[in-house]
Amino acid sequence: MNEFEDLGFCKLDMGRNERTGHPEVVFGMGKTVDQVDTIFSRLVEVHGRALVTRATPEMAERVNATYPEAEYDEVSRLIYLGKPTRNLLGKVAVLTAGTSDIPVAEEAARTAEWMGCEVDRIYDVGVAGIERLLSQKERIREASVVIAVAGMEGALVSVVGGLVRRPVIAVPTSVGYGANLQGITTLLAMMTSCAAGVTVVNIDNGFGAGFQAAMILQLVSEGI
Amino acid sequence: MNEFEDLGFCKLDMGRNERTGHPEVVFGMGKTVDQVDTIFSRLVEVHGRALVTRATPEMAERVNATYPEAEYDEVSRLIYLGKPTRNLLGKVAVLTAGTSDIPVAEEAARTAEWMGCEVDRIYDVGVAGIERLLSQKERIREASVVIAVAGMEGALVSVVGGLVRRPVIAVPTSVGYGANLQGITTLLAMMTSCAAGVTVVNIDNGFGAGFQAAMILQLVSEGI
Amino acid sequence: MNEFEDLGFCKLDMGRNERTGHPEVVFGMGKTVDQVDTIFSRLVEVHGRALVTRATPEMAERVNATYPEAEYDEVSRLIYLGKPTRNLLGKVAVLTAGTSDIPVAEEAARTAEWMGCEVDRIYDVGVAGIERLLSQKERIREASVVIAVAGMEGALVSVVGGLVRRPVIAVPTSVGYGANLQGITTLLAMMTSCAAGVTVVNIDNGFGAGFQAAMILQLVSEGI
Amino acid sequence: MNEFEDLGFCKLDMGRNERTGHPEVVFGMGKTVDQVDTIFSRLVEVHGRALVTRATPEMAERVNATYPEAEYDEVSRLIYLGKPTRNLLGKVAVLTAGTSDIPVAEEAARTAEWMGCEVDRIYDVGVAGIERLLSQKERIREASVVIAVAGMEGALVSVVGGLVRRPVIAVPTSVGYGANLQGITTLLAMMTSCAAGVTVVNIDNGFGAGFQAAMILQLVSEGI
Amino acid sequence: MNEFEDLGFCKLDMGRNERTGHPEVVFGMGKTVDQVDTIFSRLVEVHGRALVTRATPEMAERVNATYPEAEYDEVSRLIYLGKPTRNLLGKVAVLTAGTSDIPVAEEAARTAEWMGCEVDRIYDVGVAGIERLLSQKERIREASVVIAVAGMEGALVSVVGGLVRRPVIAVPTSVGYGANLQGITTLLAMMTSCAAGVTVVNIDNGFGAGFQAAMILQLVSEGI
Amino acid sequence: MNEFEDLGFCKLDMGRNERTGHPEVVFGMGKTVDQVDTIFSRLVEVHGRALVTRATPEMAERVNATYPEAEYDEVSRLIYLGKPTRNLLGKVAVLTAGTSDIPVAEEAARTAEWMGCEVDRIYDVGVAGIERLLSQKERIREASVVIAVAGMEGALVSVVGGLVRRPVIAVPTSVGYGANLQGITTLLAMMTSCAAGVTVVNIDNGFGAGFQAAMILQLVSEGI
Amino acid sequence: MNEFEDLGFCKLDMGRNERTGHPEVVFGMGKTVDQVDTIFSRLVEVHGRALVTRATPEMAERVNATYPEAEYDEVSRLIYLGKPTRNLLGKVAVLTAGTSDIPVAEEAARTAEWMGCEVDRIYDVGVAGIERLLSQKERIREASVVIAVAGMEGALVSVVGGLVRRPVIAVPTSVGYGANLQGITTLLAMMTSCAAGVTVVNIDNGFGAGFQAAMILQLVSEGI
Amino acid sequence: MNEFEDLGFCKLDMGRNERTGHPEVVFGMGKTVDQVDTIFSRLVEVHGRALVTRATPEMAERVNATYPEAEYDEVSRLIYLGKPTRNLLGKVAVLTAGTSDIPVAEEAARTAEWMGCEVDRIYDVGVAGIERLLSQKERIREASVVIAVAGMEGALVSVVGGLVRRPVIAVPTSVGYGANLQGITTLLAMMTSCAAGVTVVNIDNGFGAGFQAAMILQLVSEGI
Repeated sequence: MNEFEDLGFCKLDMGRNERTGHPEVVFGMGKTVDQVDTIFSRLVEVHGRALVTRATPEMAERVNATYPEAEYDEVSRLIYLGKPTRNLLGKVAVLTAGTSDIPVAEEAARTAEWMGCEVDRIYDVGVAGIERLLSQKERIREASVVIAVAGMEGALVSVVGGLVRRPVIAVPTSVGYGANLQGITTLLAMMTSCAAGVTVVNIDNGFGAGFQAAMILQLVSEGI
Repeated sequence: MNEFEDLGFCKLDMGRNERTGHPEVVFGMGKTVDQVDTIFSRLVEVHGRALVTRATPEMAERVNATYPEAEYDEVSRLIYLGKPTRNLLGKVAVLTAGTSDIPVAEEAARTAEWMGCEVDRIYDVGVAGIERLLSQKERIREASVVIAVAGMEGALVSVVGGLVRRPVIAVPTSVGYGANLQGITTLLAMMTSCAAGVTVVNIDNGFGAGFQAAMILQLVSEGI
Repeated sequence: MNEFEDLGFCKLDMGRNERTGHPEVVFGMGKTVDQVDTIFSRLVEVHGRALVTRATPEMAERVNATYPEAEYDEVSRLIYLGKPTRNLLGKVAVLTAGTSDIPVAEEAARTAEWMGCEVDRIYDVGVAGIERLLSQKERIREASVVIAVAGMEGALVSVVGGLVRRPVIAVPTSVGYGANLQGITTLLAMMTSCAAGVTVVNIDNGFGAGFQAAMILQLVSEGI
Repeated sequence: MNEFEDLGFCKLDMGRNERTGHPEVVFGMGKTVDQVDTIFSRLVEVHGRALVTRATPEMAERVNATYPEAEYDEVSRLIYLGKPTRNLLGKVAVLTAGTSDIPVAEEAARTAEWMGCEVDRIYDVGVAGIERLLSQKERIREASVVIAVAGMEGALVSVVGGLVRRPVIAVPTSVGYGANLQGITTLLAMMTSCAAGVTVVNIDNGFGAGFQAAMILQLVSEGI
Repeated sequence: MNEFEDLGFCKLDMGRNERTGHPEVVFGMGKTVDQVDTIFSRLVEVHGRALVTRATPEMAERVNATYPEAEYDEVSRLIYLGKPTRNLLGKVAVLTAGTSDIPVAEEAARTAEWMGCEVDRIYDVGVAGIERLLSQKERIREASVVIAVAGMEGALVSVVGGLVRRPVIAVPTSVGYGANLQGITTLLAMMTSCAAGVTVVNIDNGFGAGFQAAMILQLVSEGI
Repeated sequence: MNEFEDLGFCKLDMGRNERTGHPEVVFGMGKTVDQVDTIFSRLVEVHGRALVTRATPEMAERVNATYPEAEYDEVSRLIYLGKPTRNLLGKVAVLTAGTSDIPVAEEAARTAEWMGCEVDRIYDVGVAGIERLLSQKERIREASVVIAVAGMEGALVSVVGGLVRRPVIAVPTSVGYGANLQGITTLLAMMTSCAAGVTVVNIDNGFGAGFQAAMILQLVSEGI
Repeated sequence: MNEFEDLGFCKLDMGRNERTGHPEVVFGMGKTVDQVDTIFSRLVEVHGRALVTRATPEMAERVNATYPEAEYDEVSRLIYLGKPTRNLLGKVAVLTAGTSDIPVAEEAARTAEWMGCEVDRIYDVGVAGIERLLSQKERIREASVVIAVAGMEGALVSVVGGLVRRPVIAVPTSVGYGANLQGITTLLAMMTSCAAGVTVVNIDNGFGAGFQAAMILQLVSEGI
Repeated sequence: MNEFEDLGFCKLDMGRNERTGHPEVVFGMGKTVDQVDTIFSRLVEVHGRALVTRATPEMAERVNATYPEAEYDEVSRLIYLGKPTRNLLGKVAVLTAGTSDIPVAEEAARTAEWMGCEVDRIYDVGVAGIERLLSQKERIREASVVIAVAGMEGALVSVVGGLVRRPVIAVPTSVGYGANLQGITTLLAMMTSCAAGVTVVNIDNGFGAGFQAAMILQLVSEGI
């Protein structure tokens, strides 16, 4: 029971690093700069590393005042500090359908890297120009896990799902307009995809996809 | 004004054949067997040909009592009688993503044929096995208009839209379950597709796609 | 395979001009000013012409620094440069239901013009004053393709669909409030329209409608 | 307070006839045959007349056992007995877009008649063949109130709303499929119509439209 | 046909005043200040009166530069000028459920007044304190038409519908949060209300309700 | 941990009676007749009493074969056996808006009775005839907890919420059509109600309301 | 009838304090600063205490000009003044799933306190770290009423519902993104929860939950 | 290209077994008995094994006529024949929240078994009785992949996601009513879950979850 440390506004899971190999990750959205700073500091003190998602520049600035070595990536909106404790076997391919999907893809890629994965970025291979994707087929097949990030109708996922024999994690993005419904159409379309072996995370949830990919490679590395 | 003939329960558009080259098409759904029979007979008397969509076997049986030469296709649920007045230039390719999309595709194909089009059927070329589609690439590119019929996430449309330089008409079908929402997801996904040059008709509306394809070839045949 | 040129953040389709007669069109939304500028320059270098949709004034300003002859139309939000390689046969009529639909209509009209079409603009002919539309009937019927742009309930499409014997492409707009649901109601209403021969594109997607219209006239010009 | 008579399963509003000029109308849907029979009998005993909407043939059969003079109309699903207490000034025009909308229109028409209105039925004048509607323009303009019944995209309402200077009551029907969403699209489209002076009732609620029309004519007849 | 005057960006309905007794009303939303100013001036030149709905302060300022006597009401966002040509018989009661519904109610009330109606404003009589409403029962019953404006669940409409024997026009407002869905819940709830004799207009459409109420009183005044 | 008994297809909560004063209640929907029978028997063996909700006649027949004293109420679809262990203080008033809401109300009422509550049934007091409700005001105010069951727009809840000083539990029902959306509109409307002190349960969930009411009276009886 | 005092823009319920033990609570959203100030002053003059929900800092500043002793809590956005007339028996536990849910929880907690309840705040006990919640089990079970505040999928409610034998009031919050649909998913998920004895209020409606909890404890304190 | 065999109504992927280790799986829904029989026979001829999902008893009967050794499981609606080519490392835990979720869980479990996985079934451990789940914690943690099957609000997924350090695949089921929206609420709730490391498949898509789990174990067995 004493795995949780009570900071008043939150109960920090200090046992998580031992249980899972990674400290608790901080979801920045909806938290104040003060709250993020307090949690970040406490995590680094105990575990020597930390990751914040959906971080604002203000949060990064505050964290950097104490930890200048913490990095902030504006595209993925991640703050991170510390090396993974080991390098995981295998490789994660992160694909995007278009240029506008890159921020979400970077959230996935950097999360996986922070957790010890090697990542291969293959961007702008949407299916409206199918040759772009097919020319990368061998490269994609070399990955142990594939993350496919797409907005609009999300068709990339269905094609990729049929190309590989490894797990595919689909990330719908809110890129699109009108009938796209801020990504809800993309999410539902990926759900009802004709390809087997595909699972889906929430809209714009690059973190969730990178995390799941790393868990799979961790399983491979540890052997069941 | 006297183009319309009043049958009590409906006002039949008798001038349509002259204006557009085709008699009014009867939408069977929601009409009684009596109503369909009366309209069908009147159209044949005046124009020598007629087409009923969404027809039930009961409607076909009744129509056949008077017009044994009228054909009923159980798959597409069409009743039709009479030849097109001329053969249109060009060819319409009708594609389906899966086997279950065939009934809607047949509605499109037979409507286009009834209006004078040559149709090339290319079925079960969904993108989860992209080679199936790519192996038909040249055949699809020979068509002047492409109708792409798909359920689930409708990704076929995006890939086909990028393969051809001719107009693509997308038909979402209600094939799928759960997140498919009876085809609404397919419709919205096709709408928000990343491919240019694609337009969309209502869910399961094979007739509308076949009709539009024929109008395009009629334009080609007549020359603007 | 070498049709695509890798710019890092995107893979540019350099073979598109030869395959389809037009260079790839740049979708500005979600891209940075730098990205748009880089792509625009590369397209002009290779093809001598380019088109950007959903462009911001900042994008236009940057592009103009290198290509002062590039034009930016604030209403349609298009940046374009270069003449069409040939004039297509036929004419495209672009109709709007109201004054507020004009920006979307201009996107359609200027896209079609950039691709070589002659365009006839017929604005503010919504059906609540049906005489406005009927007084333009002959003019509309002279067009080879009709683009109908409307918000609210989109009824213009149903009436126009019944007036002409040529393909009608419907563009729902997000003009309206409350039950309009930012254009979703308009889109669904156009989909379920009682008129045959109508196909629909995404909400506010004037580009898609203009592009499809040009493809049809290109087919007419080339002859199947 | 003693206006209501308690029948156990319902509290019948016996004062309604005096307050409004009409006895309470029985909504048959969701009631048992016994319940409808009991209520009907009690209303006839007290007021000499009664109306049941959404009635099944079983309800009609039971009611007829006691009141053979009660009429059941299978199309509108109404059971009614008794004459209106007076004939109201003016006339109600009931329009439908198509043949399939007739059952809902009949519910409206017969409700208005039961309440003392003269009704002019103008069916199958949907806007896809606009001449059908325009040829009836004068006849429609003679009505004091117009009820427009339509399914699909409901465009009839917008055109009619612009043709007349009298109140228009729109009734969306569940006629359509796919994007029609069982009439929800029709309802929302009518709501967001571009025509002023139109109000809307629930999907398939012919009764509500007929009732409101009669209330307006009752106001005219009584003079404010 | 020459009832419409073409201003380029719009086709003004100059025959409307003669046909219906009122000049065309200008819907300000989505129009530029220039467009509103041009239309307003033209209407006043021809008819001597005009009404703009959903007007911004900028529109009002511009209009006032030419017509200082035009009034702008900030609450209802109406610009209006000119007297009604005659006073209509009867009275319109405008009710609101709460204080926040007043802007929409004022749009309804002032529209009706501009068209010649006498209006009785009865605000903040929502049903959560039913005595507030019941204490106004006689006053409400004196009206010939009742407009009920409410947000949230819109229950005011159901109670009022059962209190009066005159037509009730319901206006859902976007007042509420969460499950209110920006007024969509209110709209649907009013649609499915248990009270007969109620019709509904779009969310926040006070103008539409006021207009319909005036049309009813115009009918009463003119006598069918 | 040994509070749960593993029956293979389910894990029965045998400690619930001691923890809460009532045995686990069986949700019949989606279970087979065999499963219900097995669970029912086991509950009665251990606790001497049991309750099944959403039970079919087939379930009742099977249960009665072993326990002829078990009662099945066809209206509420409950099977129940055994007396409450004590009578709770206070009274629960169960109100319905209409006759069609009675089955859901009976599920609430009989659940509360099985748990030891005294119930006062006040049916068909919907607000379209507000006097019906107001005439029962004193009776309703005598209750310690009020359950308000309503379909359509659910306005009963808002009025009742304002009449009493005791907790009100609202139960939306699926009674209605069209814009009612199978009760979703009712649910959302009740959620966004203008009355304070109202909480809501799922559509048609009479059991949940009765259960919560009994928990409140149990709290009163036990004293915090 | 004279319980209501007419302030022009609103009708203040002055009898509420006597009827229910608390003055009317002011819902700040959608009201002007002037309106809130006027109502607040009048309530304090008559009852000596007042509560405003959803108050802006501007409202607080204005109110403080007259009543410097009125407190404004920026987190919960409440303005309040005055002590409860008595302390209620029992205790209310207010739980949150995460840190971001605290503002809504504070609205609930402070409302309940203002009404006389003792409140125990137990924050950040979401189920993704189930030990956090279980370690508080005894503390939660000591409460007479439990308010569970959660965003995202709202699973906290289901677990808590199974842990306690007292009424649980669930408050969905709009914390989340994408598939969360601004809290609609949370609301619907809580509604369809597998736990009995749970009722739900509107999204972010902390006030409603606190109010209902206080009503239950008031019932306990008064004894039916 | 010759990997696909054209059966007329479908193009069978004969290369899939070699590419992925498993023959194509047949989705029975929407196919005729003839079509399923033909495909099944062809798959068995070539690969010696086959799997049909969503199979009807009629399909099973037909298949058994030729292959009496093919098994049909009525609960999961699977037809299967043949052993997996090898046993995969690790174990898949399949959990259900309730008894009614078992059919979907069995589809997942048997699919995984057919592909070579060892499966541990842990049913009826929904979170409303959290001890049921916690008592199985060690057993669940022994699995390499966890499949969590739940209807209603799907809270099981959030709790399980926080308990294990292995990938969790969530399957929403259509078990529930009212606000459950046939599983859409469950799907969205799982998507927006507060637990990291969870991915989701379509409603009732047990096959997809079992397939993905097997792909992960195949990766583990093959070593990246």
